[in-house]
Amino acid sequence: MLGPRVWSSVRQGLSRALSSTVGGWASGEGRKVDISGIYPPVTTPFTATAEVDYGKLEENLHKLGTFPFRGFVVQGSNGEFPFLTSSERLEVGPSPVLCLLPSPTAACREDFLLPPAATQATVEMTVSMAQVGADAAMVVTPCYYHGRMNSAALIHHYTKVADLSPIPVVLYSVPANTGLDLPVDAVVTLSQHPNIVGIKDSGGDVTRIGLIVHKTRRQDFQVLAGSAGFLLASYAVGAVGGVCALANVLGAQVCQLERLCLTGQWEDAQKLQHRLIEPNTAVTRRFGIPGLKKTMDWFGYYGGPCRAPLQELSAAQEEALRLDFTSNGWL
Amino acid sequence: MLGPRVWSSVRQGLSRALSSTVGGWASGEGRKVDISGIYPPVTTPFTATAEVDYGKLEENLHKLGTFPFRGFVVQGSNGEFPFLTSSERLEVGPSPVLCLLPSPTAACREDFLLPPAATQATVEMTVSMAQVGADAAMVVTPCYYHGRMNSAALIHHYTKVADLSPIPVVLYSVPANTGLDLPVDAVVTLSQHPNIVGIKDSGGDVTRIGLIVHKTRRQDFQVLAGSAGFLLASYAVGAVGGVCALANVLGAQVCQLERLCLTGQWEDAQKLQHRLIEPNTAVTRRFGIPGLKKTMDWFGYYGGPCRAPLQELSAAQEEALRLDFTSNGWL
Amino acid sequence: MLGPRVWSSVRQGLSRALSSTVGGWASGEGRKVDISGIYPPVTTPFTATAEVDYGKLEENLHKLGTFPFRGFVVQGSNGEFPFLTSSERLEVGPSPVLCLLPSPTAACREDFLLPPAATQATVEMTVSMAQVGADAAMVVTPCYYHGRMNSAALIHHYTKVADLSPIPVVLYSVPANTGLDLPVDAVVTLSQHPNIVGIKDSGGDVTRIGLIVHKTRRQDFQVLAGSAGFLLASYAVGAVGGVCALANVLGAQVCQLERLCLTGQWEDAQKLQHRLIEPNTAVTRRFGIPGLKKTMDWFGYYGGPCRAPLQELSAAQEEALRLDFTSNGWL
Amino acid sequence: MLGPRVWSSVRQGLSRALSSTVGGWASGEGRKVDISGIYPPVTTPFTATAEVDYGKLEENLHKLGTFPFRGFVVQGSNGEFPFLTSSERLEVGPSPVLCLLPSPTAACREDFLLPPAATQATVEMTVSMAQVGADAAMVVTPCYYHGRMNSAALIHHYTKVADLSPIPVVLYSVPANTGLDLPVDAVVTLSQHPNIVGIKDSGGDVTRIGLIVHKTRRQDFQVLAGSAGFLLASYAVGAVGGVCALANVLGAQVCQLERLCLTGQWEDAQKLQHRLIEPNTAVTRRFGIPGLKKTMDWFGYYGGPCRAPLQELSAAQEEALRLDFTSNGWL
Repeated sequence: MLGPRVWSSVRQGLSRALSSTVGGWASGEGRKVDISGIYPPVTTPFTATAEVDYGKLEENLHKLGTFPFRGFVVQGSNGEFPFLTSSERLEVGPSPVLCLLPSPTAACREDFLLPPAATQATVEMTVSMAQVGADAAMVVTPCYYHGRMNSAALIHHYTKVADLSPIPVVLYSVPANTGLDLPVDAVVTLSQHPNIVGIKDSGGDVTRIGLIVHKTRRQDFQVLAGSAGFLLASYAVGAVGGVCALANVLGAQVCQLERLCLTGQWEDAQKLQHRLIEPNTAVTRRFGIPGLKKTMDWFGYYGGPCRAPLQELSAAQEEALRLDFTSNGWL
Repeated sequence: MLGPRVWSSVRQGLSRALSSTVGGWASGEGRKVDISGIYPPVTTPFTATAEVDYGKLEENLHKLGTFPFRGFVVQGSNGEFPFLTSSERLEVGPSPVLCLLPSPTAACREDFLLPPAATQATVEMTVSMAQVGADAAMVVTPCYYHGRMNSAALIHHYTKVADLSPIPVVLYSVPANTGLDLPVDAVVTLSQHPNIVGIKDSGGDVTRIGLIVHKTRRQDFQVLAGSAGFLLASYAVGAVGGVCALANVLGAQVCQLERLCLTGQWEDAQKLQHRLIEPNTAVTRRFGIPGLKKTMDWFGYYGGPCRAPLQELSAAQEEALRLDFTSNGWL
Repeated sequence: MLGPRVWSSVRQGLSRALSSTVGGWASGEGRKVDISGIYPPVTTPFTATAEVDYGKLEENLHKLGTFPFRGFVVQGSNGEFPFLTSSERLEVGPSPVLCLLPSPTAACREDFLLPPAATQATVEMTVSMAQVGADAAMVVTPCYYHGRMNSAALIHHYTKVADLSPIPVVLYSVPANTGLDLPVDAVVTLSQHPNIVGIKDSGGDVTRIGLIVHKTRRQDFQVLAGSAGFLLASYAVGAVGGVCALANVLGAQVCQLERLCLTGQWEDAQKLQHRLIEPNTAVTRRFGIPGLKKTMDWFGYYGGPCRAPLQELSAAQEEALRLDFTSNGWL
Repeated sequence: MLGPRVWSSVRQGLSRALSSTVGGWASGEGRKVDISGIYPPVTTPFTATAEVDYGKLEENLHKLGTFPFRGFVVQGSNGEFPFLTSSERLEVGPSPVLCLLPSPTAACREDFLLPPAATQATVEMTVSMAQVGADAAMVVTPCYYHGRMNSAALIHHYTKVADLSPIPVVLYSVPANTGLDLPVDAVVTLSQHPNIVGIKDSGGDVTRIGLIVHKTRRQDFQVLAGSAGFLLASYAVGAVGGVCALANVLGAQVCQLERLCLTGQWEDAQKLQHRLIEPNTAVTRRFGIPGLKKTMDWFGYYGGPCRAPLQELSAAQEEALRLDFTSNGWL
């Protein structure tokens, strides 16, 4: 397991200075905490016999820690969270998983509450996470009975969770996985809750992202893009960061794209964004986590095998994956 | 919690005689066990404070036990399984949940393994179920990474599970919930596995159901319809039973429809089927579990509240629900 | 072009005797005309230079005319209607295209009004068709602005068309092509119109078909299945016929399936239905019109080329197509 | 009907100076014509008795002509093209419909070839359009048999059309209407054709738009956004213009957004874009052409009625439509 010491070390290794985010989580005077920046959703390394390899996880984190990330998202889809046992989650759980800097002493973790979860269970999980030091909880839309999940039900759910969660809540809408897009009117209502600080939107609909920014502009509410493929466009319409699987392998480049957008260098940003689209699609929609892990191996991280039922890439798929990186000058 | 005594009592109360299914689970001479018949997927009663009400569950089961069901499916979608805690599942778990009669001595349970589950975890769950007396495991398609779940991955998953499961496996395809239809070619391949006895198909595509029956006709493979709405049509193309939410409230009628189909009284069957379509849609797709539980209250069972985030029906919805039953002569 | 003489000849060659449908189109005493039976939607033969080959069309019709069809549907999807020029349509138009027997003197044609059509234009087309002798008009849901096509708009459209059409109207719902399923409540309302005699439903949702039969049972309203894949199931829930592309190549078999269903020989019907599913899918969804035409060549009809942008099958596709027929014993 | 004189007058009234686009359509030296800029897809005015009102059309065009548009798109979806008769289309047809300025002498028209069209018919329509003076043809993906429309078929179709069309071809992908997204690999192949100058992409997937710009960057290929909702984001990833229904009512604002993007004033662009999203959705997806025409009435244009089956807005819908404009400060 990864102890707090490891995470403390990882945190200190991160190149982004604490002083750059004055105040940070200590959100005095009614301001919501600042969650802007880039987060890689880290993978969970497995050994050849499908055990979690904590040593490799630590190594990966230290390597990733050299980039100016805002923090890490763990136990998300890219972490094969659905395939972890309860005990494995506890081994990882007490450690600061998503480091939303600056959080020097407290452990931190941003967590996905998986779709099939009751409101009450979600509340309890945020409490557990706070106890082990998490800084924020990223709460996916409940979707198992999605035919019944209208705006009223979703507002009720998130309000209850945010009321009782000891840590800030980040909404999470990922229609490709859940079949459910958190309605904009629900987002607007929820943005007024003092303990709901933002949303991660993975749908890729930049019209919607712009509208959310617009309609929550008086609420100190922050939008994170859910993928590197539409990161520039999201910044252009007012997003403040992104949770990007691609940052696990092209961390420097994704952070550079952030910087170009923030400093208004849109032409260079466009060129860089263009070269990231195919690699991003390759490690997400096209080849999934098997593709991401294979690419990590190429870039000096430990990727390793996935757990079943996920299958390894075929030779032809691997070749196509490589082409998506070489044709854009990354390999 | 419900102890084995309760389940044993429920089992004995069932009106369907053991002798009518000679052999049953004792599948000698290479025959697969017979799973034909009607199963209500039972709901989980909650108190006003959202606790599981085991007494009401027992009462409901005894009432349901007066109909000639083949058994019960528990901890499925209709049981609000995703909203049960691990400990609550243990309280229910050791009891025979899905009674696939005739199974006089062994406890029995048919269980949904929820989508986010690794192959290895699925195997372990079948072992646990067998230990507490389950007769069969109904295993839903893994779908969390459905972009990667092609036929090869699904065949690998189910083969591994069936190889190691001590109890028979029933495939379960429910595209409305999972976004994934178990491909027919995968079903055909898997039908040859000695420990895979059938499939519950909830998609409602009767062309597909007919094709599955046709292409597995030499495999002693059994198809169950996943809803009462297309039960007659499924029998017409070769299905042998159904898992029908509507059977929780119109148990006698669903069993009568089964009998009419089995005895070739198609005209009467058609008339009865017609009158069940709207009530069935009302307690499933249209009003979900809140609708089903409300209807249970009307029919002398304990329905009671759902757990959040599921919301109660509005007055207008309740009226529309009632109309779907009264207009067909059931209330 | 095909003159009335040709069609008259085709009509007389049909083996189904007029006397078997007493009254027929002369629907006295408020009864709607009887449209029960099987209809092949005929293809449009083209020469090697993509001209319409009227001689081959006539030959095909005479061969098809030896089966006990109820009539023909022409200028539908399978007729590559969207690829015909206006003048080509006139060449075919004046002829009786869909022969709804018995209609000994009047020409007859059942026609698809393609999606992009105003209400007024649809009315005018039914008038033109009546003038050239059509017996009925099959009117597809207007769908170009499907976001605006709610029940009210659709009821308004069909009511206006049926009010002014000199020939009976058959509703046509084909969601796979139009993205729009004619809502059941609209069907029920429209079934009360004296000039709307039925619906062709191509969605394959047998629950819906049963519900339509049930809710229109007092309206003398007839349902035709839109495909041979769910023909038996549709009869089982109350349909009275089908428009089946497969009937272009396995006409005898589709008519035999009709007869088995009508005479209550459900076991034999099931066996036959099973063997028709794969061939049916092959000439429809799987390989489209190129597949249907290729198969026609094998069965002694003239299939010939399609018009661009439709492409010929590859050798591998042709092999797969053939396998769908040989593995079921038809080739 | 609108004669060439009217269109010539409209053209000269356009405020965008010819000299600003030196060369224009006379694309010497192998350069493709420049189609950058904003185009309103104009509506077709009807009288109270549903006749085309050419006088109102002319008035609308003259009013629209005061904004710095690049030209007009006519006979598209917003022009209720599917509801025009052939003769009505001829009345409008000979006039320059889409004015791609500067084209002072030639008539010009950009046209939608509606989905149900054979390759050969599409070719003939481009010839007809060229004869009446069109500058370019916007050719929507053939989609009627979309199951057969793979990349190979689509490349064959567009190549044939572009080979034989006397005027430049603009690809048009609008998955919401056609159920078909022109695959990126097909776009890339087609971008190399000398007579294919660009694509209008209405899908709203900015990742895809960026990828198309990136992969065609050596082909002098131009991308137009299909809606004002994602116009800024499209410019940010390299698009050069847009066909925007909203420009029919907020023409000055859409042109201002273009200018802000082109001059790198991204902050102001973002603020303006935000205020255009809801109005844009209102006149497109939410309330369709009835909404657009109603809004035109408010803004001093002639909107008037739609043809059936399109229905007028209800009072409640009209109120919601108005709110989308007032809440953003436009009314």
